[in-house]
Amino acid sequence: MKRIYFNEVVTRDGFQNEPEFVDTDAKIALVDELSQCGFAKIEVTSFTSAKAIPMLRDADEVMHRIQRVPGVEYTVLVPNVRGADRALACRADELNLVMSTSETHNLANLRMPRERSFAGLRDVISIVSGQRPVNVSLSTCFGCPMEGDVPQSEVLAWAERFAELGVRGLTICDTTGMAHPAQVATLCTNLRERFAGLQLTLHFHNTRGMGLANVLAAVQSGIDRFDGSLGGLGGCPYAPGASGNITSEDAIYMLQSMGYETGIDTARLLAVARRLPEVVRHAVPGQLAKAGRITDLHPAPPSVAELKEMFL
Amino acid sequence: MKRIYFNEVVTRDGFQNEPEFVDTDAKIALVDELSQCGFAKIEVTSFTSAKAIPMLRDADEVMHRIQRVPGVEYTVLVPNVRGADRALACRADELNLVMSTSETHNLANLRMPRERSFAGLRDVISIVSGQRPVNVSLSTCFGCPMEGDVPQSEVLAWAERFAELGVRGLTICDTTGMAHPAQVATLCTNLRERFAGLQLTLHFHNTRGMGLANVLAAVQSGIDRFDGSLGGLGGCPYAPGASGNITSEDAIYMLQSMGYETGIDTARLLAVARRLPEVVRHAVPGQLAKAGRITDLHPAPPSVAELKEMFL
Repeated sequence: MKRIYFNEVVTRDGFQNEPEFVDTDAKIALVDELSQCGFAKIEVTSFTSAKAIPMLRDADEVMHRIQRVPGVEYTVLVPNVRGADRALACRADELNLVMSTSETHNLANLRMPRERSFAGLRDVISIVSGQRPVNVSLSTCFGCPMEGDVPQSEVLAWAERFAELGVRGLTICDTTGMAHPAQVATLCTNLRERFAGLQLTLHFHNTRGMGLANVLAAVQSGIDRFDGSLGGLGGCPYAPGASGNITSEDAIYMLQSMGYETGIDTARLLAVARRLPEVVRHAVPGQLAKAGRITDLHPAPPSVAELKEMFL
Repeated sequence: MKRIYFNEVVTRDGFQNEPEFVDTDAKIALVDELSQCGFAKIEVTSFTSAKAIPMLRDADEVMHRIQRVPGVEYTVLVPNVRGADRALACRADELNLVMSTSETHNLANLRMPRERSFAGLRDVISIVSGQRPVNVSLSTCFGCPMEGDVPQSEVLAWAERFAELGVRGLTICDTTGMAHPAQVATLCTNLRERFAGLQLTLHFHNTRGMGLANVLAAVQSGIDRFDGSLGGLGGCPYAPGASGNITSEDAIYMLQSMGYETGIDTARLLAVARRLPEVVRHAVPGQLAKAGRITDLHPAPPSVAELKEMFL
C-alpha cells in the first residue's frame, strides 16, 4: 500500500476564482472541517494584496482563527517579501511561492518578466531560509494558453534554479489543463530522476476532462503528492464553463479504490464536499459527491422481488 | 502510432436517457454529421418496443434515412428475435445484444433472469448467424449498483458462453461508473488472454470522474476499442446529476494527444459536439467542447505588450 499525499487548495486556488465573496467565518469553518479529513497539507490562503485578490483579503484573520490539527501542514501562497513577513507572522507551516515557466503567462499574471519574478522569489527564500520550508509552484509546465508549447527543458531549467536555492519542494502545475498522460509520464520521470531529494507535487486541472487520467499517469511514474480542490473549484478564465482543478474527493477516491493509502477519511470528506455548493452558492464539478461511493448501493426496485419469485 | 477504434453511442445510449423526445430529423442529421467524423462504428438506435423506450420509437425510419458512409459500421441494439428481424430488414451492419452479468440488474432492467436472457440471445445469434456479425454488450462488469461486487470470474464465464456461440465481439460495460483503473487493468488483461480472437470493446461511464483514467488503463492493457457518447450524454438513474457515458470527444482527444491514431477529425467532431446542447436543450458534461483544443491558443492581454516594452 503505497502512501499518496494530498494538498487541499480549495480555500486558496478554488476560492480565488469565485465571483462572490465567501465570508471569513465560512472560510474558517471549511478549513476546520478539512483539517479533520486527513489531508497532509492544506493551502489555506494567499498573502497577496487585497486589491489584487479581494476574495483573500482576510488571509491574516483566517490563518489566526483556524484550529490547527497536528500532522496537517498549513501552507500559504506568498508572492513577495511583504507576503512572506505576513506568512511568518501568521505562523504558516510552509510558504508556497509561484511563478510561470511561460514568459507571456508570467507577464499576464504577475506583471513582470520571469527573471524579475525569480529574483523576487530568491529574496523571499533567503529571508525565510531556516525558518520555514519553502515550496515553489511552477505554472504552465504543460503548456501556456497564450504561447502554446512550453518545452520540458524550460521546466527542468527553472526547477533546477529553485532546487539550487534549497527549496523543500516543487509543484509542477498544469495551470489551464493542457497536459495529457503521455506528456505527464515523461516529465514526471525526468523530474524524479533530476530532483530525487525534493518533494514533487503535481497540480492538475480537469479543463479538458483528462485530470484523473493525468493523476494516474503521474502515480505510475512514481509521483506521490498532488494538489486537489474540493468539488473541483478553481475554473480558469481561458475556459469559461469548463472544469477547474481536479476534484480532491474524486482523485482521492480513485487512488483509494486502487489500493493506495491516502490517509483521508472519504466519508467525512464527502460530507464536507456536499456542503460546498451552499458555501459558494452554485453547483460544482465534482462527481463523487453526486454519485456516492461505489459501495453505496441502491435498493432493487420492488419488481425484482416479484420477478425472482416468478422465475427463480 | 497504434490505432484505436471508437464507437459513437450518443443517439442510442445517450438519447435513451434524455427526458425530452429528440425528433427524427434531428437524430438523422446528427448521425449524418457523426458519419463524417471518422468513427469506426456508430450505434444508431435500438429495436426495442416503442413502449419500453419511446425515445427510440423511430428506429426503423432513422436506419432507413441515414446516409451511410463507406467504412463506418452502423450497429443497432437488439433485445430479441423480433428486434433482430427489424434490424436485418434495416440492413444494420452489426447487431448488438445486451444482458447483465448481475442477476439483480438483469431482473431490474430486462425483467428476466440472466439464464432466460442468455437463451433468448442464443436464439437471436443462431438466426442472425452468417448474415451479420454479432456483438454482445455485458452490463455491470465492474460492479452492480444494487448487488455491489461482480466477480471477474462471473464476467469471464458469461464472456466465454457467448464466445462459444461465435459472436464477433464483446463489449465490457461499466454501466454505472463503478470501475477503477486497477480493476480495469486486471479484467482487460484477463479478457485479452482468454479472447484474443474477439473484438473487445470497453464501455465506461464517468459517473465518479474516473472515465478517462479507466480508458487510459484499458489502453495500457492493450484494449483498442471504446464506446463513447458525444457530449458525455447518457446519465444513469442511480446517480442523478452525475456524468453519463465517457465523452467521445474528450476520450478521443486525449488518445490523439498521446499519439494514438483514432481516424477521427477532431475539429469536425467538436463542431458537432458544440451543437449538441441545442439538440437536447440542456448543457452537457463534455469538457473539450467548452475548453477547446490545447492548440486553440488565446491572445495575450494588451498589458503584456506594454510590460514587454517596459522590461524586455
